[in-house]
Amino acid sequence: MNRKYNFSAGPATLPLPVLEEAKQQLLNYKNAGMSVLEMSHRSKDFITILEETKTALTKVLSIPDNYDVMFLTGGASTQFATLPMNFLKNSAGYINTGSWSKKAIKEAKLFGNVNVVASSEEQNFNYIPQDISLPGDVDYNHITSNNTIFGTQWLQFPQRGESPLFVDMSSDILSRKFDIQNFDVVYAGAQKNAGPAGVTIVIMRKDLTEKSNTSLPSMFQYKIHADKDSCYNTPPVFQIYLVGLIAKWIESEGGLETIEKRNRQKGELLYQTMDERSSFYTGTAKKDSRSFMNVTFRLPSEELEKKFLQETETKSFSGLKGHRSVGGIRVSMYNAMSLEGIEKLTEFMKDFAQQNS
Amino acid sequence: MNRKYNFSAGPATLPLPVLEEAKQQLLNYKNAGMSVLEMSHRSKDFITILEETKTALTKVLSIPDNYDVMFLTGGASTQFATLPMNFLKNSAGYINTGSWSKKAIKEAKLFGNVNVVASSEEQNFNYIPQDISLPGDVDYNHITSNNTIFGTQWLQFPQRGESPLFVDMSSDILSRKFDIQNFDVVYAGAQKNAGPAGVTIVIMRKDLTEKSNTSLPSMFQYKIHADKDSCYNTPPVFQIYLVGLIAKWIESEGGLETIEKRNRQKGELLYQTMDERSSFYTGTAKKDSRSFMNVTFRLPSEELEKKFLQETETKSFSGLKGHRSVGGIRVSMYNAMSLEGIEKLTEFMKDFAQQNS
Repeated sequence: MNRKYNFSAGPATLPLPVLEEAKQQLLNYKNAGMSVLEMSHRSKDFITILEETKTALTKVLSIPDNYDVMFLTGGASTQFATLPMNFLKNSAGYINTGSWSKKAIKEAKLFGNVNVVASSEEQNFNYIPQDISLPGDVDYNHITSNNTIFGTQWLQFPQRGESPLFVDMSSDILSRKFDIQNFDVVYAGAQKNAGPAGVTIVIMRKDLTEKSNTSLPSMFQYKIHADKDSCYNTPPVFQIYLVGLIAKWIESEGGLETIEKRNRQKGELLYQTMDERSSFYTGTAKKDSRSFMNVTFRLPSEELEKKFLQETETKSFSGLKGHRSVGGIRVSMYNAMSLEGIEKLTEFMKDFAQQNS
Repeated sequence: MNRKYNFSAGPATLPLPVLEEAKQQLLNYKNAGMSVLEMSHRSKDFITILEETKTALTKVLSIPDNYDVMFLTGGASTQFATLPMNFLKNSAGYINTGSWSKKAIKEAKLFGNVNVVASSEEQNFNYIPQDISLPGDVDYNHITSNNTIFGTQWLQFPQRGESPLFVDMSSDILSRKFDIQNFDVVYAGAQKNAGPAGVTIVIMRKDLTEKSNTSLPSMFQYKIHADKDSCYNTPPVFQIYLVGLIAKWIESEGGLETIEKRNRQKGELLYQTMDERSSFYTGTAKKDSRSFMNVTFRLPSEELEKKFLQETETKSFSGLKGHRSVGGIRVSMYNAMSLEGIEKLTEFMKDFAQQNS
């Protein structure tokens, strides 16, 4: 089939069985006589797809009854604005752990006071601040669970405390188990572990949805989307269908426990390969903050990094170039990246280090 | 293949060759080694797809150089808000021709004065106001080119005049030729003639983009989207790819001239079938305002309408139920609905009228 090992940070590799099922159903979904791409969002078939997607996500993430599950559009970038538009009355606490946090802070400042509770910016975001105590007198606190660009991840989340806690989980939702009840809002652009680009998952405590701002344009009101079950306007039907297939795939693989185990195994193999050659491969994130989704490292010189990338291109590896704000190499390894992919990459890394040291 | 004749108002039937190409490329796009669903928006392959999509749309719609073409999300419903957020400083003129116009007016009122220049609401929106003179002293005027619910369409657009003219063309863009230079903004949710749900096409005069409001959240600023070529945040890559396939399909079919001719042929056949049985099939739109996209009619009784819908279900026809605000039957026949589909439907209509008169 000639499929590459796709190490892109997102949109990213998707599970092959999911793509195969989507392909098989592309002209005619389960004898509906049409593609999901052509399906009215008011049709029985799509309403069933929507319900099945919510049910599978709810099961996989253990979402309690007192949360709304919405499928919106505009990515996390839109949530950066609509969350403060709905909930920022006086001040909010933000933890600044990278580019995405910074963008979220920038948008929030348009609507109220932002208290930057902690930041790792002074060290180019190479760590996650530890032992944070979140303020209890703000409208909400906000964190970014994983940082695609700087290769850091909250390995243990801060405790919610007195104020609601919002988390942008775009790049690691569905990659590991976590207690959703520690959060009042979990949101994620789907295009890493949860689906293709074009749909945003928003999981919101119902008592918070009820308090959302009703003087905004309809499309920015969470209560409207929750009340209309994500069908106030035409939702991205095909994207929702794929999120459902992915959630069911996770279930069939053994749930988040299995997925998390695999992701740890991949990450440990890759970090071990780096650490055993630490004079050649320098991880950019501090060890206690290393991400299991995006691994960032530098080589001894930019020439060697260029050569590394050139050689990987001939190896059916794709998407390994680091983001310009860090440079070097970035290995993104979401759920759909197989252990085999990481084994092949680490074999290559060993050979490359040996030949170029 | 058992594909139904899908008469849904949207999401709607898509051209079979487009779906077949998408299916063929679903696991591996042109030897890229991955699906478009998995493709980084920063990758060469996707940048080429984006450019090809813009080029094909520009050609098919004859878009001059002084317009930006953007691919956004959130549907027309989001544009109802973001257009006034960007351009409504004092007042705007809106023509109220149906549910979509009303929603656009509702959102605009949050941001300034709305001058309802003309309205057909007093007759349940069964016509398009004629001989309109658009005010020249407003920030912009706004019309809805086709009304999916009430089955009406601007067959001749009002002249732009002194103030900028915005048009929501969600349900008939790409169905006929028109002079884009009569408009300053043409926008459309894609899910009728232009693609699947999940992408919004915004074509905006560059001098207007330059004047957009730069104090809004980033995602609501047209200038940011235009400057970043729709890649400020992760765009819906698969949707954009499909819009490109559809624009190329239109080109290969002979462009909008051919498409318009076909749509007229389909519409004339259907309206003629109704008018020849006007004591049985009562069109709800006035003749001078009849849409070539959505045809709405009533039968002599609700029982007969129910029976009609029941019988169509056994005939591989789908999506014919009228919207609750009009009742009866609605036949949506976008570009991808074949003349054969309308022939089969009109044959059925003839038989049904004969058997039930």
